[in-house]
Amino acid sequence: MDAETFRALGHQLVDWVAEYWERVESLPVRSELAPGDVSAMLPESAPEEPEDWSAILSDLERVIVPGTTHWQHPGFFAYFPANVSGPSVLGELVSAGLGAQGMLWQTSPAMTELETRVLDWMAQLLGLSPAFRSDAPGGMGGGVIQGTASEATLVSMLAARSRHDVPLAKLRVYASEQTHSSAVKAAMIAGLATGPDDDRQVRQIPVDEQFRMRPEALAAAIRSDREAGAVPIWVCATVGTTGTCAVDPVSAVADVIASEAPDAWLHVDGAFAGVLALCPEHRHLFEGVDRADSVVVNAHKWLLTNFDCSLFWSRDRASLLRALSITPEYLRNAATESGSVIDYRDWQIPLGRRFRSMKLWFVLRHYGASGLRTFLRQHIALAGDFAARVDAHPGLERVAPVHTSLVCFRAVEGNEASRALLEAVNASGEVYLTHTTVPDGRGGQHFVLRLAIGGVRTTAAHVDLAWARIVASLRR
Amino acid sequence: MDAETFRALGHQLVDWVAEYWERVESLPVRSELAPGDVSAMLPESAPEEPEDWSAILSDLERVIVPGTTHWQHPGFFAYFPANVSGPSVLGELVSAGLGAQGMLWQTSPAMTELETRVLDWMAQLLGLSPAFRSDAPGGMGGGVIQGTASEATLVSMLAARSRHDVPLAKLRVYASEQTHSSAVKAAMIAGLATGPDDDRQVRQIPVDEQFRMRPEALAAAIRSDREAGAVPIWVCATVGTTGTCAVDPVSAVADVIASEAPDAWLHVDGAFAGVLALCPEHRHLFEGVDRADSVVVNAHKWLLTNFDCSLFWSRDRASLLRALSITPEYLRNAATESGSVIDYRDWQIPLGRRFRSMKLWFVLRHYGASGLRTFLRQHIALAGDFAARVDAHPGLERVAPVHTSLVCFRAVEGNEASRALLEAVNASGEVYLTHTTVPDGRGGQHFVLRLAIGGVRTTAAHVDLAWARIVASLRR
Repeated sequence: MDAETFRALGHQLVDWVAEYWERVESLPVRSELAPGDVSAMLPESAPEEPEDWSAILSDLERVIVPGTTHWQHPGFFAYFPANVSGPSVLGELVSAGLGAQGMLWQTSPAMTELETRVLDWMAQLLGLSPAFRSDAPGGMGGGVIQGTASEATLVSMLAARSRHDVPLAKLRVYASEQTHSSAVKAAMIAGLATGPDDDRQVRQIPVDEQFRMRPEALAAAIRSDREAGAVPIWVCATVGTTGTCAVDPVSAVADVIASEAPDAWLHVDGAFAGVLALCPEHRHLFEGVDRADSVVVNAHKWLLTNFDCSLFWSRDRASLLRALSITPEYLRNAATESGSVIDYRDWQIPLGRRFRSMKLWFVLRHYGASGLRTFLRQHIALAGDFAARVDAHPGLERVAPVHTSLVCFRAVEGNEASRALLEAVNASGEVYLTHTTVPDGRGGQHFVLRLAIGGVRTTAAHVDLAWARIVASLRR
Repeated sequence: MDAETFRALGHQLVDWVAEYWERVESLPVRSELAPGDVSAMLPESAPEEPEDWSAILSDLERVIVPGTTHWQHPGFFAYFPANVSGPSVLGELVSAGLGAQGMLWQTSPAMTELETRVLDWMAQLLGLSPAFRSDAPGGMGGGVIQGTASEATLVSMLAARSRHDVPLAKLRVYASEQTHSSAVKAAMIAGLATGPDDDRQVRQIPVDEQFRMRPEALAAAIRSDREAGAVPIWVCATVGTTGTCAVDPVSAVADVIASEAPDAWLHVDGAFAGVLALCPEHRHLFEGVDRADSVVVNAHKWLLTNFDCSLFWSRDRASLLRALSITPEYLRNAATESGSVIDYRDWQIPLGRRFRSMKLWFVLRHYGASGLRTFLRQHIALAGDFAARVDAHPGLERVAPVHTSLVCFRAVEGNEASRALLEAVNASGEVYLTHTTVPDGRGGQHFVLRLAIGGVRTTAAHVDLAWARIVASLRR
């Protein structure tokens, strides 16, 4: 493709993205297509000869837009947000254009050093201990961008595993019943579980009535494992669980580790809620995080940075390297051997890596820390208002404290009514919520609607609309 | 950022990328900065208030361009290419703008179904067995885009592991001494090795004088492991090794597996060279690949699609799901439960995923299959010419057959002269080559220069320039 064509199409597609953002509210938030509908619109084979861009661009409208669930729709309250901003997309564009590889410092110094610096900036902004920064005394700390929090969790478990020279079957890892599924998946990958239901080495610790890990239950589990000759190596505490944004008592968990299994690794999963530490008034949620061995916070959920951009810090770089470093001859180079550089391939699962710090750098500079705080605070305020309406409504019941912008609630009438409510609300095509279940305290499970606020275009009007649809859809 | 600002900056950055590609040849291909130079140009803390875009764009020139090793430079002959094209960058832009998540079919149907279709297209174009396609009888085949070949290799090993209900310590995996380091790294992650030098469960099979895995050595290793009570689960054969682009005898390896360990998984790593199967005249390199359980081919190396876009097919979807599937309540949905859709989260390590098929779709439609073949053939021709010059030069010696666009050679004078040659050539800043080592047949290692051709802007003139620098730098 020649430069003029690229310029012309590039401008056209930048405009397409801008218009998409402007009109996304008019589209059904959840794709209305059925399984196979998209496939049926696509040819069976690739074109042998070049096609015209008019055909490609028209297929973008004909096939892709109706087949997409619009995560950037202001009525998207499902799962967690994956918000996207102009500066971030511009960063992705530049990164793609440069097309550099960052597996080694040597293969693109700016990619490595900007990433290190931007992660140090974020560690400061989040109030993390200096031990997590690359300039920590002893040089054992530092941050890295992982593709996803799942990968960060896996990396932390592998680093933890590398501290212990005992047979795998003796190792034990701990997470709460509400911990993200990636913890169990990491254990499956790392050879500590054969499937999601294999609890021989993965201990799922019970939670309290606010869905927080119970530290005394953790202590008991560790103690009983140790008495049986097993070795506790890794504990995950979550600040903002996926189901309800519960906040595990990190300090108490760290106390348990200190007394019961001082060699175990404490990983703190702040994938969604971690960015709230930018705001001093929310930093109390993160008490104890400084005692962790690693922390993950996603910029790609609620911090205006498009996926993927998962921020991971550890204070124990040596364990990461022991778990993940391998240097074949074709990657040897003077910079690595000097010991004066970071080679991020040794901090992650894959070898290759994109220039992901570019988009976060653009976001931080365009909004400034103050702009990011304002962005988060508006969603916190909207969630507070919504929660108050739920609390005041006789047909609804809130099922968890609101620490973030996620509100979890149910129909008081019961699970069937709650499920029907969710379906009716989503059928509107104007808003989209998803669900989870939580223990009902009587041995059963509550079906729970989740309203997660965090869209770039989401305003009070959209939360009002969601509320109106909920009230109108509630069985009387 | 409002729509008008995004449009204006977007146009400006599209133009910046176009200009970058136009001027990249005038920049030193390898960054000339020393460790710490980029950091020194960056502030210690993030800005509290928004900055102006003039400052951001000027830092792109001041900090990023000089700190980048220019993988898109036409004189970049290092490692393997990671080429980038206009259509691919446009696809990345649209994908970032949509900002959708493809972890489940439900979370964005078009992302899943386009990916499945484009992988079926590619399977056809590469001449892979229909068993690898999503429409294979029995529904057990299919393709997925992984971030990297490293991840594909890990996923295949985990799928292989899930076929066997025996203690991990009994499992054995096999790769040649020339297999990519990601195989050993995968074993480390999967709990089959504690480090790169732990050969208790990872067998590195010797190679022949063309650096191909020796099937009789594989057979002997498997036999001896089985006699000792171990269980062979996974074998990697490579079509185009990283060091020298050696081609393992896939058919013979498959024969060994069939007779010695029929339950073992055969993974074929065609990360770099696999795309050559697009051209009928090169398809002989892939003989036997149809007998594999999985295959990986990177679109992001030599197929005009920017990183990351690693194409992975398996004929045993059930093992992938057994190894990687886990469904917490918050991800349950009717489409998944109907069994009529693919949820790609179960085919990969992470949960979240980008719309990576978009860029490959754009590339396939813009160039057509014929255009991609032409692109590959020009590099093959350039490599053939270069190899002939090496062969004709009395001071140089080619060390491996040229099956692809990689030429491996050394100074006949020896390793010290070869190393000096590499350094002198790279010092020019006009071309960039890297090295590897290979067994010299006498118990030592040859230091080898690698010239890998595959840049979008690389022409005969650039290969001529590389040749001129090599000849001029060769010690007399």
